[in-house]
Amino acid sequence: MERQKTRELLEAVAAGEVSSDEALSRLSRLPFIDTAGARVDTHRALRHGLPEVVFSPGKTAAQVIDIVRVLRQSEQPVLATRVEAELADAVRAALPEGVYDADSRTLWFGPSQVPVVGKGTIAVVSAGTADLPVAREAAAVAGRFGNKVETLFDVGVAGLHRLLAADETLRNAHVVIVVAGMEGALPSVVGGLVGRPVIAVPTSVGYGASFGGLAALLGMLNSCASNVSVVNIDNGFGAAYVATLINRL
Amino acid sequence: MERQKTRELLEAVAAGEVSSDEALSRLSRLPFIDTAGARVDTHRALRHGLPEVVFSPGKTAAQVIDIVRVLRQSEQPVLATRVEAELADAVRAALPEGVYDADSRTLWFGPSQVPVVGKGTIAVVSAGTADLPVAREAAAVAGRFGNKVETLFDVGVAGLHRLLAADETLRNAHVVIVVAGMEGALPSVVGGLVGRPVIAVPTSVGYGASFGGLAALLGMLNSCASNVSVVNIDNGFGAAYVATLINRL
Amino acid sequence: MERQKTRELLEAVAAGEVSSDEALSRLSRLPFIDTAGARVDTHRALRHGLPEVVFSPGKTAAQVIDIVRVLRQSEQPVLATRVEAELADAVRAALPEGVYDADSRTLWFGPSQVPVVGKGTIAVVSAGTADLPVAREAAAVAGRFGNKVETLFDVGVAGLHRLLAADETLRNAHVVIVVAGMEGALPSVVGGLVGRPVIAVPTSVGYGASFGGLAALLGMLNSCASNVSVVNIDNGFGAAYVATLINRL
Amino acid sequence: MERQKTRELLEAVAAGEVSSDEALSRLSRLPFIDTAGARVDTHRALRHGLPEVVFSPGKTAAQVIDIVRVLRQSEQPVLATRVEAELADAVRAALPEGVYDADSRTLWFGPSQVPVVGKGTIAVVSAGTADLPVAREAAAVAGRFGNKVETLFDVGVAGLHRLLAADETLRNAHVVIVVAGMEGALPSVVGGLVGRPVIAVPTSVGYGASFGGLAALLGMLNSCASNVSVVNIDNGFGAAYVATLINRL
Amino acid sequence: MERQKTRELLEAVAAGEVSSDEALSRLSRLPFIDTAGARVDTHRALRHGLPEVVFSPGKTAAQVIDIVRVLRQSEQPVLATRVEAELADAVRAALPEGVYDADSRTLWFGPSQVPVVGKGTIAVVSAGTADLPVAREAAAVAGRFGNKVETLFDVGVAGLHRLLAADETLRNAHVVIVVAGMEGALPSVVGGLVGRPVIAVPTSVGYGASFGGLAALLGMLNSCASNVSVVNIDNGFGAAYVATLINRL
Amino acid sequence: MERQKTRELLEAVAAGEVSSDEALSRLSRLPFIDTAGARVDTHRALRHGLPEVVFSPGKTAAQVIDIVRVLRQSEQPVLATRVEAELADAVRAALPEGVYDADSRTLWFGPSQVPVVGKGTIAVVSAGTADLPVAREAAAVAGRFGNKVETLFDVGVAGLHRLLAADETLRNAHVVIVVAGMEGALPSVVGGLVGRPVIAVPTSVGYGASFGGLAALLGMLNSCASNVSVVNIDNGFGAAYVATLINRL
Amino acid sequence: MERQKTRELLEAVAAGEVSSDEALSRLSRLPFIDTAGARVDTHRALRHGLPEVVFSPGKTAAQVIDIVRVLRQSEQPVLATRVEAELADAVRAALPEGVYDADSRTLWFGPSQVPVVGKGTIAVVSAGTADLPVAREAAAVAGRFGNKVETLFDVGVAGLHRLLAADETLRNAHVVIVVAGMEGALPSVVGGLVGRPVIAVPTSVGYGASFGGLAALLGMLNSCASNVSVVNIDNGFGAAYVATLINRL
Amino acid sequence: MERQKTRELLEAVAAGEVSSDEALSRLSRLPFIDTAGARVDTHRALRHGLPEVVFSPGKTAAQVIDIVRVLRQSEQPVLATRVEAELADAVRAALPEGVYDADSRTLWFGPSQVPVVGKGTIAVVSAGTADLPVAREAAAVAGRFGNKVETLFDVGVAGLHRLLAADETLRNAHVVIVVAGMEGALPSVVGGLVGRPVIAVPTSVGYGASFGGLAALLGMLNSCASNVSVVNIDNGFGAAYVATLINRL
Repeated sequence: MERQKTRELLEAVAAGEVSSDEALSRLSRLPFIDTAGARVDTHRALRHGLPEVVFSPGKTAAQVIDIVRVLRQSEQPVLATRVEAELADAVRAALPEGVYDADSRTLWFGPSQVPVVGKGTIAVVSAGTADLPVAREAAAVAGRFGNKVETLFDVGVAGLHRLLAADETLRNAHVVIVVAGMEGALPSVVGGLVGRPVIAVPTSVGYGASFGGLAALLGMLNSCASNVSVVNIDNGFGAAYVATLINRL
Repeated sequence: MERQKTRELLEAVAAGEVSSDEALSRLSRLPFIDTAGARVDTHRALRHGLPEVVFSPGKTAAQVIDIVRVLRQSEQPVLATRVEAELADAVRAALPEGVYDADSRTLWFGPSQVPVVGKGTIAVVSAGTADLPVAREAAAVAGRFGNKVETLFDVGVAGLHRLLAADETLRNAHVVIVVAGMEGALPSVVGGLVGRPVIAVPTSVGYGASFGGLAALLGMLNSCASNVSVVNIDNGFGAAYVATLINRL
Repeated sequence: MERQKTRELLEAVAAGEVSSDEALSRLSRLPFIDTAGARVDTHRALRHGLPEVVFSPGKTAAQVIDIVRVLRQSEQPVLATRVEAELADAVRAALPEGVYDADSRTLWFGPSQVPVVGKGTIAVVSAGTADLPVAREAAAVAGRFGNKVETLFDVGVAGLHRLLAADETLRNAHVVIVVAGMEGALPSVVGGLVGRPVIAVPTSVGYGASFGGLAALLGMLNSCASNVSVVNIDNGFGAAYVATLINRL
Repeated sequence: MERQKTRELLEAVAAGEVSSDEALSRLSRLPFIDTAGARVDTHRALRHGLPEVVFSPGKTAAQVIDIVRVLRQSEQPVLATRVEAELADAVRAALPEGVYDADSRTLWFGPSQVPVVGKGTIAVVSAGTADLPVAREAAAVAGRFGNKVETLFDVGVAGLHRLLAADETLRNAHVVIVVAGMEGALPSVVGGLVGRPVIAVPTSVGYGASFGGLAALLGMLNSCASNVSVVNIDNGFGAAYVATLINRL
Repeated sequence: MERQKTRELLEAVAAGEVSSDEALSRLSRLPFIDTAGARVDTHRALRHGLPEVVFSPGKTAAQVIDIVRVLRQSEQPVLATRVEAELADAVRAALPEGVYDADSRTLWFGPSQVPVVGKGTIAVVSAGTADLPVAREAAAVAGRFGNKVETLFDVGVAGLHRLLAADETLRNAHVVIVVAGMEGALPSVVGGLVGRPVIAVPTSVGYGASFGGLAALLGMLNSCASNVSVVNIDNGFGAAYVATLINRL
Repeated sequence: MERQKTRELLEAVAAGEVSSDEALSRLSRLPFIDTAGARVDTHRALRHGLPEVVFSPGKTAAQVIDIVRVLRQSEQPVLATRVEAELADAVRAALPEGVYDADSRTLWFGPSQVPVVGKGTIAVVSAGTADLPVAREAAAVAGRFGNKVETLFDVGVAGLHRLLAADETLRNAHVVIVVAGMEGALPSVVGGLVGRPVIAVPTSVGYGASFGGLAALLGMLNSCASNVSVVNIDNGFGAAYVATLINRL
Repeated sequence: MERQKTRELLEAVAAGEVSSDEALSRLSRLPFIDTAGARVDTHRALRHGLPEVVFSPGKTAAQVIDIVRVLRQSEQPVLATRVEAELADAVRAALPEGVYDADSRTLWFGPSQVPVVGKGTIAVVSAGTADLPVAREAAAVAGRFGNKVETLFDVGVAGLHRLLAADETLRNAHVVIVVAGMEGALPSVVGGLVGRPVIAVPTSVGYGASFGGLAALLGMLNSCASNVSVVNIDNGFGAAYVATLINRL
Repeated sequence: MERQKTRELLEAVAAGEVSSDEALSRLSRLPFIDTAGARVDTHRALRHGLPEVVFSPGKTAAQVIDIVRVLRQSEQPVLATRVEAELADAVRAALPEGVYDADSRTLWFGPSQVPVVGKGTIAVVSAGTADLPVAREAAAVAGRFGNKVETLFDVGVAGLHRLLAADETLRNAHVVIVVAGMEGALPSVVGGLVGRPVIAVPTSVGYGASFGGLAALLGMLNSCASNVSVVNIDNGFGAAYVATLINRL
């Protein structure tokens, strides 16, 4: 739109219909000029060759269906996250092409095989069984975003053997996502084993003094391993997003 | 600058030297077009007819002197806030025209009488003697910003008489700034007495469970008086800034 | 009442029926003398020409109906806020003249067109779709309070284009209400674009380290834009109230 | 019991049946010697001539019925607090002599008229309508504990007139209980009006930055009125208990 | 003053020099009518027959000297609290009649023997040696306020013997002030031993997870003894003030 | 497994079938060499002669059944904790040999009598009735882990008599587990009475300023008794685990 | 003393000089009867055969000297903790037999060789160099308390090799004290490696989101290793005390 | 070392000097087998071709000098961070080849020109002047780690023009480090402008409700831009470390 308006203005200047001064004045009133159109903020993912993402909590089935329909008109893939089974059923009643994965709570509209464009492997590591939903969200999103993904679940720091046994997997990864609740110590240990960027995801898993994930979050922010950065509590999606951008560099 | 560049580009289009497409492409690379110049962010106050403000903490005398000198070249008034006596002495050794007010910790470079442009009176109310530095900062800033200011100090809620005695002052004010530490109850009481906007400033005055002003801050945010909004702890300057904008409407 | 009692006492003194000493003693027992009557606190809004407001959470339909009935006897308009659909249905079964707006969760008893008495426009800006209920409450309340309102929804800071595109709307507003959850950054950006008072409303939108809106609240209190003041989390009503008072100055 | 055992031991010493050394050894193994009996901790209230109190949350109807039955065997009055209507119904099905007061959530087993033994009046003051359950609990408990009680509800600090109008009630009270949520400012104002002990009860009333009553609690702890002490959030019972002890001095 | 003005006004009404209407109008402009004079808020203590109190932190020697001089003109006693030795020396250089007690950090201007007007004894109990300054402040203030005081220091809950040994002292007290840092458990234990009001004072004594007294404060607010109420961290003065009011009932 | 693989590799080196270099390379790829097998982390308890433990919250009946079945194949005992009645019923429908104890919320698969291997007695002490579920979990787990257990419930610090009456029980214990909510003072008192390690378990029992057990947790961490260490809020299992290890030394 | 008094009373009863009733009355007034003497609370350590401990912060050299002198009169060893160099110099000027260890900030008065009475070894493990003062305090106290101590410093979780290399040391220990700041992950890792009680000491080492040791504290409380219990931030002494009691069982 | 030891052991097995069983036993006692040597944890940076880094706070000049000397023996570069001027002077007195940069508080021992091995540019963006030390640390570290660095300072969100003007710099960067205090909004805005990984560094810049950087930290963790991950408050070094690893992929 804006691009079109600006083009018309420039053509009018070129045609002598509008003076430079007048054009200058009008341009200074226009918003930032953008070659990609006005809805850039919701379309950022698309611009980067990523699917559109719909964060489901708080949305009704009708709202999700509407959003997906609009986006699907232009053939682009859509990924809905944090989709509970009930919502998935309701959406798929209207849009049966949606592929639901209950483990990762994702609902996918797009090609069954996403071409891999990420350069290396993203490893997703998690501590306890209760951290699995977040870890699986990270893995599923990374997969749908065109990355090769390896997972390493149930390797808590109180039993190092499994983690050390998977040393090769870790060392081969381009980026490592580490998901952990409770004391959130796993990213520090993994960070010490690899020379790659580690993205830590605290989870709200725990009770009492975990304070909804605060303990894990603070632990990760204070990691003694320098290659660790952190995203919000339970934000498996965000970790996969950052890892995808890193994996494309 | 940008304005000049844009003008030249438009003239080149008008002259046929640059095509519309090329111009469109170049424009989309330019920053936001601004008629007021590049340093708008630091010059915002000036644009609004307000003096430049220098927040002093963490700045050396040399840095303050430099900033003031640059700003004074264009004759504009400058107000430095949170200036301790020692810093004031050092700055005034180099810039003796500075007027220092120890009570409000302000250092002023500008006309001794600022013309009043605010429509009404700004009342500055405070609770205890320890809140005075913040209250006086608010009053001094509001004065230097061209407002008529009335002050009402030492009217804590545990002794309502003084406050009620000043009812007329409060009712005549266009905007009321209320400064209080400890339990921060004064804005609620004042808010109930007047039908004007009340800007509440929590202070870090107190000890123990005041937690550096947190108690007063939370109290003010939960005010049962609907005409109260809040600024940061000890932020007398910010309250005066908001009050000034309101008083000019 | 009190005024009447005081008058009678004074007349008794004038008539010599009561001695000065006796009157002094009685007066010192009387409450604060008020020309407007005793129920000022619940009637404050009315005195300012504003509708009475009923905060619904925790109230039964019967209670809301009672309150509205009493207030409507004197023909004054009444606005109930935070009214969920179920409560609205129950109230409107008894009081069918109530107009319910599910988006803003308001229930209105009064003229369908409120005369505009505010001097300028109040702009209500919000970041994400999840912030909409709070933003719509602010807009609806501001409208019912006699202001011209413009809304600018879905203009988060991660996509500045939309916001910049609406620059004119922002610049034309007398007061700007900015509603945002998550990191609460929008008021700072808006505050930098306009030279008017900005009232920031943090929302409880978010998860994990948002801690029920604490992150947005702290962000807004620490805004680097000096024209921002803040109300309680999710307090769209309070923001509209303050904005209304400002808009009438 | 212990007293009896000790007496027997001493008599055995006096009778020469037990040596001093042996007695010394046995005594050093005994618990603290108490003239009042072993179950002092649960029977404290009774010793002070107060009814036994049952804190209901988390207890089943069967548990409450059991406790009341045991206590009623010795004819002593029993007061259950925080009793929701459903629980009250279930308990009264078994114990129909229980008198339930839904407003204060108390269930009473005892004489319909409790003799007044408190020396003066306890005033219970509260701010908003949402604070009423806590205020009524305080008033009901104080009444059942043998005090003359006066209540002053709905006198928030944003409308001082009502509070000032009730000045005489406040001044006549021996002890004042002040119940308030949100910013918790009322105890400071009341504390400034009276020269008696004020017991402040923060409530969890509020939303957003009230953080479950934390704002009110901190406000009250930081009160600028020196005659204020504070009990736990929503602890109307505790305030009445302390006030009762004060009122009997 | 106000009382005098009001009297004159009433006499003018009686004399027919001022009409009832005019008097009504003037009265409604006056502050709250008070029989004790205008400076009631700072003079509250005096009205209750208590000495004036000066909270010293943040005040210069000159300021303290000024305040004391003004108050001493009317012969009333003055008690300065939280006075460090250096400040005491500086003040006593100018006002040598001041009696300084370094242990309680109080500086006293008044009769060396204060007549006892409190009805019973106030017991001041404290836990560790580091709590002594706060406990001694409470004891000194209670003494200067005309109470008989008994102290019981160094009776922490990890060694119950001393406390139990002093059982009689506790039981004889009218009011008990309990001062404790760290886990703040002492008020609960004392509260269980006596049937009198217990005023708990948390102290900032401790380190690490004491968080400046927060641990002790929360402990006391959650006391399982119902006769405990709480004042601010380190507020020995406030506890003595409340205890004094209770002890005069 | 790993041990076996390593042995085979070494034998191949000894047999000259694999070169030293090749073996070195392979070994550096192997996980940490362990004599007990790969699943050490989940099998830690077993190695210590303790039953396997299943933490139930968040697990479905099907998941619990699966886990128990796998573990029971090797005849080892299994203890499920935090099992609500409904879950217990569902699991026992499939695995009827499970013994459910509703009080401690444990479900046990193993011999009805566990041989006592702990050297001394573990005393489990608790304060209020609401702390019982956590205390009973501690006691049940300690029993199933092969310890002699003595319990001392309902001995809050506000009534010391019961606790002192049980002095002998406390002094005879090898380790003492103390469970308390609200102000969490009991471990300090018990710690002062015994010369043994005390493991403190804060509970989430309380309301208002207990903040979900934070008050009790902080109190215990700041205990003035030096023999106290602390586990997470409501973690009766963890306390029993630590006590068991201590009791076996 | 008390023992002596009680003995005399019993002898008087035996001699018929005091009646049983009179003796009963006197006994019920006595403190808890104790065979070890009256000052049990400060002398607890001694009773357990441990040296007296003086916590130095906040004490003057004169106070420390006094305390040590009194305690040394009865020949018992004394250990002062958290002694800064300056204080140590001042104390040793008066009491030259004191042995100061700057690394552990301990000052020791007693035999140069303490006989080992602990049954096994206490291992003290720490993460970073900044944690050393706390770790060394724990090690020094454990040594002076009669334990064999092994230390394992500088084995952070980001470099597991050193820790794994010391596996034997860890496995041979009876009790393990783990000292760590920042994310506090080390106790979980160590807890997973050993089958012994682990006492975790969070330190205030760190910056930013470590919040004075809160991050490490929360991490340790949420440890996924079940054999971990926790003491206060920086409380090396407390960890050594608990470990000593465990090591004597 | 370990590698060498393992090789020798294997050769001994091959030579028949050590049996397989014996070798197995020895191997199971060895730490994790590592081809790079034992001190991997402190030498991690070196392995990645990065200089050794010394975190200076809390270290004496002597300690820093020692560490640098040891490291410099093997010719490797060393970077000390958070070096205040005084410390730098003291270290350079002994090691004059150190290059001190006061702005970034770094002290460098190594080649004056570090070869660029990073693939793209790292942009370092900061908001206010007070954030400069942290931003400069990030930039200096990134430079010394072999990256091309572009800086964009003083581009706060309240003045978007400068930031938008630098759009090209941002878009050209491989990775963007964003440093901001106060409300911490800048990473969200930058994250919306670029399609690259953004590493956010909250700073402790601010006062009042910034709570030492907590406000900025929470803001960044809740960023509505999905490409943002976060490191600890003031951790410019950590951001540069992560960015370097990303830039080498």
